[in-house]
Amino acid sequence: MELENSLKIAHKLADVSGEIITKYFRQAHVKTQTKEGMVSSIVTLADLEAEAAMVEILRQEAPQDGVIREEGEDIASDSGRYWVLDPIDGTSSFAKGFPIFGTLIGLVEGDTDKTLLGIVNQPILRERWTGVVGRKTLLNQVILTNPYNLESDSQLQDACLNATTPLMFITERQRLISHHLQQVCKRQAFGGDCYNYMALASGWGAMPLVILESDLKYYDFCAIIPIIEGTGGCITDWQGKPLNRDSTEVLATSNRVLLEQALSVIANL
Amino acid sequence: MELENSLKIAHKLADVSGEIITKYFRQAHVKTQTKEGMVSSIVTLADLEAEAAMVEILRQEAPQDGVIREEGEDIASDSGRYWVLDPIDGTSSFAKGFPIFGTLIGLVEGDTDKTLLGIVNQPILRERWTGVVGRKTLLNQVILTNPYNLESDSQLQDACLNATTPLMFITERQRLISHHLQQVCKRQAFGGDCYNYMALASGWGAMPLVILESDLKYYDFCAIIPIIEGTGGCITDWQGKPLNRDSTEVLATSNRVLLEQALSVIANL
Repeated sequence: MELENSLKIAHKLADVSGEIITKYFRQAHVKTQTKEGMVSSIVTLADLEAEAAMVEILRQEAPQDGVIREEGEDIASDSGRYWVLDPIDGTSSFAKGFPIFGTLIGLVEGDTDKTLLGIVNQPILRERWTGVVGRKTLLNQVILTNPYNLESDSQLQDACLNATTPLMFITERQRLISHHLQQVCKRQAFGGDCYNYMALASGWGAMPLVILESDLKYYDFCAIIPIIEGTGGCITDWQGKPLNRDSTEVLATSNRVLLEQALSVIANL
Repeated sequence: MELENSLKIAHKLADVSGEIITKYFRQAHVKTQTKEGMVSSIVTLADLEAEAAMVEILRQEAPQDGVIREEGEDIASDSGRYWVLDPIDGTSSFAKGFPIFGTLIGLVEGDTDKTLLGIVNQPILRERWTGVVGRKTLLNQVILTNPYNLESDSQLQDACLNATTPLMFITERQRLISHHLQQVCKRQAFGGDCYNYMALASGWGAMPLVILESDLKYYDFCAIIPIIEGTGGCITDWQGKPLNRDSTEVLATSNRVLLEQALSVIANL
């Protein structure tokens, strides 16, 4: 019952942030008044306004819950639960006018870091993924079927490896692991941010997907966890352990067979 | 008059290829009969069918023109003009279910390698860019205004640098140039294929764009040239020279000031 109410609030957050973000999408503001120039300003405006609007709703409708967010200060929790917000995941895509960014809204249990529900909202294409712990994932209220979920003969060789940017691999070891998986997988693609994870969850691919990323923040993946797990996909850290608020390395695969193979590549390096 | 007729044919090619590609988009075929497995097959099917349908139309409606294409053999020209076709530019995006790939259709004058007209068609989002030499570029029949076109105080520092993948920088010198421009530009994004160029042409960006790519084929950029030039944007090789069928290194910028700055960075390395 409490979860149903939270879910209702989460959809409201997605609605309201989506309206604000849509207003700023593909609006090149060549000259603005801000000191830092136009470059960051339009992105910052959309980011800040969308986040502020979401926090305002939460303060009214779930004042007992805390907030962990990208742009502003965290808000402590009385209920032990936290909302984890990223108004625009995929800033470069948004800034270029590519409709493959997303608003990430997660609700976590503070003592276990378990994500109770997650929404990824793409307001331009009107795609909204909803994951609730223990339930099947919905895309626009329709249950997703992931055709790669139960494939017992999946092979890394046939998968497409994804990362938003190679610049996220900071340490020597991260670069080694990324490079080695690149050699094993048939295809490697960059860009994508949260949309890579949504493609994986949705089973859109002409091939199974593997996503290997590092240098992430909690708000970059928290909402994504129940969405992927609710389709039979896998999302863990690079050791196969559950993600928590301190995780920065994320590995996601279309199914468990691919996860085991990827973990084995990593373990053997 | 002849150009008007060619333009009509070009739109027909975009219509027909778009229908075929849409049919295969986001259709994960987990198991197919082909020997190579499902991985490449769905992409190959969409690619081959779309290209074959376009070539069939050309053989009927412009039998005097030659064809340079991604998938099949080239066809010689009697008129001196060549159609340059890439049914799916952005194969990884298509294969993942991202609607940011495009069908590239160019018509060139064989003796000068001048692109007379170019279309980039994104069938899922129903976006079609049309560039004709000497005319202003259209997006869905509306003239594009590029807000960065006449900015005389543009700075590389404020621009977003783009490349589809860092793996396209093969030589030591290419990697050096890419790395150095990365240091100068404020933001660097990967992924995008033809959609980067269309974002640049459309002036969607919250910031001006620079695209630096190498390891390209003629069909990857031929159709893009009049689209970008018809908005006041720039597209040349890495020395600032006009592109031709043997070019593999492409540099595109939102305006001429940025082009000069980028060329100067390259020349000083």
